[in-house]
Amino acid sequence: MNEMLLYLIPGSGIVALLFVYIKNNWVASKEIGSDKMERIAKNISDGAMAFLRAEYKILSVFVLITAILLGFKGESEGTSYLVAVSFIVGALCSGLAGFIGMKVATKANVRTTNAAQESLGKALEIAFSGGAVMGLGVVGLGVLGLGSLFLIYSNIFQDIDTVIKVISGFSLGASSIALFARVGGGIYTKAADVGADLVGKVEAGIPEDHPLNPATIADNVGDNVGDVAGMGADLFESFVGSIIGAMVLGAAFIGLQEFSGIETNAILLPLFIASTGIIMSIIGTLFVRVKEGGSPHAALNAGEFSSAGLMMVATYFLIDYFLPDAWILNGKEYTSLGVFAATIAGLLAGLGVGKITEYYTATGKAPVKSIVKQSDTGAATTIISGLGVGMMSTAIPILLICAAVLISHYYAGLYGIAIAAVGMLANTGIQLAVDAYGPISDNAGGIAEMADLPPKVRERTDKLDAVGNTTAAIGKGFAIASAALTALALFAAYMQTAQIDAIDISDPIVMSGLLLGAMLPFVFSALSMNAVGKAAMSMIEEVRRQFRELPKLKAALEIMRKHNSDLSKASKTDMKIFNEADGVAEYSKCVEISTKAALREMVVPGLMAISVPVIIGLFSKYMLGGLLAGVTSSGVLMAIFQSNAGGAWDNAKKMIEEAGQKGTEAHKAAVVGDTVGDPFKDTSGPSLNILLKLISVVALVIAPLII
Amino acid sequence: MNEMLLYLIPGSGIVALLFVYIKNNWVASKEIGSDKMERIAKNISDGAMAFLRAEYKILSVFVLITAILLGFKGESEGTSYLVAVSFIVGALCSGLAGFIGMKVATKANVRTTNAAQESLGKALEIAFSGGAVMGLGVVGLGVLGLGSLFLIYSNIFQDIDTVIKVISGFSLGASSIALFARVGGGIYTKAADVGADLVGKVEAGIPEDHPLNPATIADNVGDNVGDVAGMGADLFESFVGSIIGAMVLGAAFIGLQEFSGIETNAILLPLFIASTGIIMSIIGTLFVRVKEGGSPHAALNAGEFSSAGLMMVATYFLIDYFLPDAWILNGKEYTSLGVFAATIAGLLAGLGVGKITEYYTATGKAPVKSIVKQSDTGAATTIISGLGVGMMSTAIPILLICAAVLISHYYAGLYGIAIAAVGMLANTGIQLAVDAYGPISDNAGGIAEMADLPPKVRERTDKLDAVGNTTAAIGKGFAIASAALTALALFAAYMQTAQIDAIDISDPIVMSGLLLGAMLPFVFSALSMNAVGKAAMSMIEEVRRQFRELPKLKAALEIMRKHNSDLSKASKTDMKIFNEADGVAEYSKCVEISTKAALREMVVPGLMAISVPVIIGLFSKYMLGGLLAGVTSSGVLMAIFQSNAGGAWDNAKKMIEEAGQKGTEAHKAAVVGDTVGDPFKDTSGPSLNILLKLISVVALVIAPLII
Repeated sequence: MNEMLLYLIPGSGIVALLFVYIKNNWVASKEIGSDKMERIAKNISDGAMAFLRAEYKILSVFVLITAILLGFKGESEGTSYLVAVSFIVGALCSGLAGFIGMKVATKANVRTTNAAQESLGKALEIAFSGGAVMGLGVVGLGVLGLGSLFLIYSNIFQDIDTVIKVISGFSLGASSIALFARVGGGIYTKAADVGADLVGKVEAGIPEDHPLNPATIADNVGDNVGDVAGMGADLFESFVGSIIGAMVLGAAFIGLQEFSGIETNAILLPLFIASTGIIMSIIGTLFVRVKEGGSPHAALNAGEFSSAGLMMVATYFLIDYFLPDAWILNGKEYTSLGVFAATIAGLLAGLGVGKITEYYTATGKAPVKSIVKQSDTGAATTIISGLGVGMMSTAIPILLICAAVLISHYYAGLYGIAIAAVGMLANTGIQLAVDAYGPISDNAGGIAEMADLPPKVRERTDKLDAVGNTTAAIGKGFAIASAALTALALFAAYMQTAQIDAIDISDPIVMSGLLLGAMLPFVFSALSMNAVGKAAMSMIEEVRRQFRELPKLKAALEIMRKHNSDLSKASKTDMKIFNEADGVAEYSKCVEISTKAALREMVVPGLMAISVPVIIGLFSKYMLGGLLAGVTSSGVLMAIFQSNAGGAWDNAKKMIEEAGQKGTEAHKAAVVGDTVGDPFKDTSGPSLNILLKLISVVALVIAPLII
Repeated sequence: MNEMLLYLIPGSGIVALLFVYIKNNWVASKEIGSDKMERIAKNISDGAMAFLRAEYKILSVFVLITAILLGFKGESEGTSYLVAVSFIVGALCSGLAGFIGMKVATKANVRTTNAAQESLGKALEIAFSGGAVMGLGVVGLGVLGLGSLFLIYSNIFQDIDTVIKVISGFSLGASSIALFARVGGGIYTKAADVGADLVGKVEAGIPEDHPLNPATIADNVGDNVGDVAGMGADLFESFVGSIIGAMVLGAAFIGLQEFSGIETNAILLPLFIASTGIIMSIIGTLFVRVKEGGSPHAALNAGEFSSAGLMMVATYFLIDYFLPDAWILNGKEYTSLGVFAATIAGLLAGLGVGKITEYYTATGKAPVKSIVKQSDTGAATTIISGLGVGMMSTAIPILLICAAVLISHYYAGLYGIAIAAVGMLANTGIQLAVDAYGPISDNAGGIAEMADLPPKVRERTDKLDAVGNTTAAIGKGFAIASAALTALALFAAYMQTAQIDAIDISDPIVMSGLLLGAMLPFVFSALSMNAVGKAAMSMIEEVRRQFRELPKLKAALEIMRKHNSDLSKASKTDMKIFNEADGVAEYSKCVEISTKAALREMVVPGLMAISVPVIIGLFSKYMLGGLLAGVTSSGVLMAIFQSNAGGAWDNAKKMIEEAGQKGTEAHKAAVVGDTVGDPFKDTSGPSLNILLKLISVVALVIAPLII
């Protein structure tokens, strides 16, 4: 291979960032709309940035301390300080990706609202462009960071093992930030959501997103910090983790470890697949267009499928170019075609898990219908059936993941598992664009409501939002399947680095590690759910305080109550009093409370996730192996269970609302289900994806220390 | 060792059965009370026996088919038909234990009610005697069955390996029956409970256990088939499984496998510990006495602790007698004192898990108080906090189990883990007596209510019942901890029998097995929860039908409604109409529906549990190893999570009721929590204990086939 080709890797990252720059400016150039819309949007944007600033302040302390510890950890090797450098770069890239995504999302939301006054197509274009900025920002920074570090380190060190060992710090930086962002963002968004709903909707009878509700801005900020920044950091981590896992395993795969000639190609292949994925994602975004009356769903699918199809073809040629046609390793023959088969197995498994996720959570399908039926007999049966649906939904995804593991391993060894994950995540750019488009549309709808725009606008943004929910299900499936494969790849990479040949599960030390590992997702989920509960409580108290102490707000609420939440027949005097309360609520207080609570509550679970593998690893590297296996198996299951139960409850409520049964006993029961599902699907569930990868990465990074 | 000592084992079983015979006659000799009480008791007893008859009819088909398959499975060995014989004997003993327990429980309940008219002490004596019959019946049949088979087989075969291989069928028989009994009983009791509550209490406003409610007899039958027969079969299985696991591992422990002299003593030790446990349990029952005004709690504790203390001393001497002071195996020195330390580690872990279970589920402690607090903001926050409590409660039990595993293995190898489980379960006789005493008291209270006895009677039975809940928590802890240790011991026994040296978790086949295994408890829980939902639905429809179609019942309900469920000011005519409805409800129809539904719904989960390990095992014995590790880790966690969440919700409701807040919004929210918790703690949770042991036993039995 021509060594100059290596420069293509950071090069593609720069292309992605150029795309981000141009698209971002394009979004910014669009009209904001009325003063009121601008004011609302500014409130949201300020709140989001305030959260990010406060979060990053805490995280920078954490990053600094960890970097120092990493620098000290194995001074004898003389490479530790570079691990610390990689760690800092990884953390910075992850943080920057979150910042870019949040910045553009809080610009795109109000502009989407404004465009929706004109047409569905224009609104889609802006919302999707916002998502694309986020998506390409994530993959661009990932590839640029990793590629540059690789170039630099391979000039410093002669042997590839050291290069890879040093570069794995990048993944640790990305994972750490991801965990805090996901957990913090998840707590923030659900505390605000539950607070806004329970006091605003239930107690005071104000509609969702109404300006009288002091928590409504915090709720919209939450969509950004949880669903945009949190998800961005999450996928940044998956993307980077799978690449690094494959690089580590690639070193052993061809069977030669010299740093020259084609032997390193198995190591470079994941980087090139990722680079190519950037280009294909950019091409894919060009296909996302819709005319008025057309289907946004079809438009998004066109983008995703064209990008995925192109990527499959490109992967074939990349593998063909980088790997020999056939070679023998440990007495078994491997072929480049086999490696390609592994990526296909991964891709199909991801798609399959996505489809199953959709089946278990979509309105109109049997599982959600069964919850709707049980809601007739009250909240208890709604909860029981939802828990049942969530637990049952683990079966087929696990079978698919196992099939992908067995097939990719059969064709390409442990490297096959890792490269399958890379193949699944190569399209992260456009996948994330589609994911992030959802909360942007959601926010746009909120702004339309708060700014009192005509119903047609809200209808259009709702249409965009609904499509986002379906496509997000597929994305979720990919996220879970790839997390499982990535964790397994990192597990294998850990064993290789820690020089472990086999981890015997019948060894009581390993078995204890397994039990401890399996426990972590339960405790972690409990911590994050309790955190949501506590944070929501503070929010509820604040909203109640404002309702009690702000005279204009109090007066407006009384008028709402007098007319039973329907002001169509209210007198002029009443309307005057009512309108005077507009904008009186102290939104920023609620934002502050959510911010503080989220940051306070994210610390314990975050530190636990990082410290437990270190402690166990120092005790025994075999026990740590058991821990990884336990946390992976139980984490994947708990993630699927919680995400799908939450999604199913959400849509059961929507089905009942669509049937015009709002306000019935069945609807009340479904609202309980939805509220229980909120922290399941938006806080603890998605955090587990990161937890299991983070613990594996920590193990990988400390592996040289515990040989 | 004098071979005649071997006869002491079945001998102690016969002593236990003699005790059962005498105690049972003593209970039967007590007064039943009024005709009305007799009629109610007969309804319950008939319903319970009808269920048992129907269940055993189905199970006998299953046992026959499985026995034939087992007989065929490895004809070449020439021992298979004896495995089938062991299997049938195990199934028969388990079934008989359930029958004895149910028979005495349905006699003791009404006699406890009657005695409670006189004094608390007499009521306790009868309820506890009923429990003791159950407890000693279980351990007596276990020891008698195992001991006799051992004597017979060791006369047929010269080598101990074959004897143990053949005897393991006994454990499979016990496990299979246990699974069906637990799942079937669990579905029955919760379907009846939920049906009785939702239609009777909530819709019609009738108090609990009121004769107007057609499901009330089914509800009381459910306590017997679920909590008595189900639990009996469960503990029978644990008891037998731990002994067999220790016997298999004992063969390798001393390092010699000849069938003569002290070398077999490690194999016989668990049988002798179990036999001694019978005697100590009988002695323990003598300590359970309480005077009027005294504390039933202290009485039960006196029985349990004296028995446990005696057992510890006896275990020390047994180990000292049976094992050499010290010996070398694989280069490591082991001592008899070390083996004793292993049993102490197991005992302490069991106690610890019990105490933690009590902490997380007891009224007045922080976890339950946190749920009570969250119930102020409605059902959703009640559910979220309860799920959080359940998940968090997994942490310390897992740490304790891991500590017990590591310590007992350190001192006595894999055998140590098995003998720790045996030590924990040696007191099963009295432990189960205390457990079974709970549902008997519960039933006694129901009969007092239905027979319209003075409030004082109900107060006394409630007092007995409340104590039962606390002591049951400790029993539950023992059940879970021992299930974990037993499963691990059986896992090691499986590996030994299947001639596997190590199961490498990084092998993708093993890892796939692990993921599949971890999935099973989720799917199994979903199946059993859905089954409860479906069965409850049939029950609800039947109760509604009777309320609609039976004229006298309808009239009485209307009077209830007219007076808002408070008849103290009703006119004479109203009271006449009301009283005429007494006994009109068609209780037997409800009993029939619950029976049919439970039996129909238990088949799929039961067959799944048995067939999955066989299929996986035939595919790869390593994958089966992974499956066992996965199902053990995730099963223990899910069992703790579900049992404790359910227990905590239950007591949160009780706390609110005790605070006199019945009927408030907070109470309504807590009732939702309690109803969700019902299938958690009484159906899916406890079934998982059996699932993980059953799968391990299946693996052990098919091990010779898949070497």
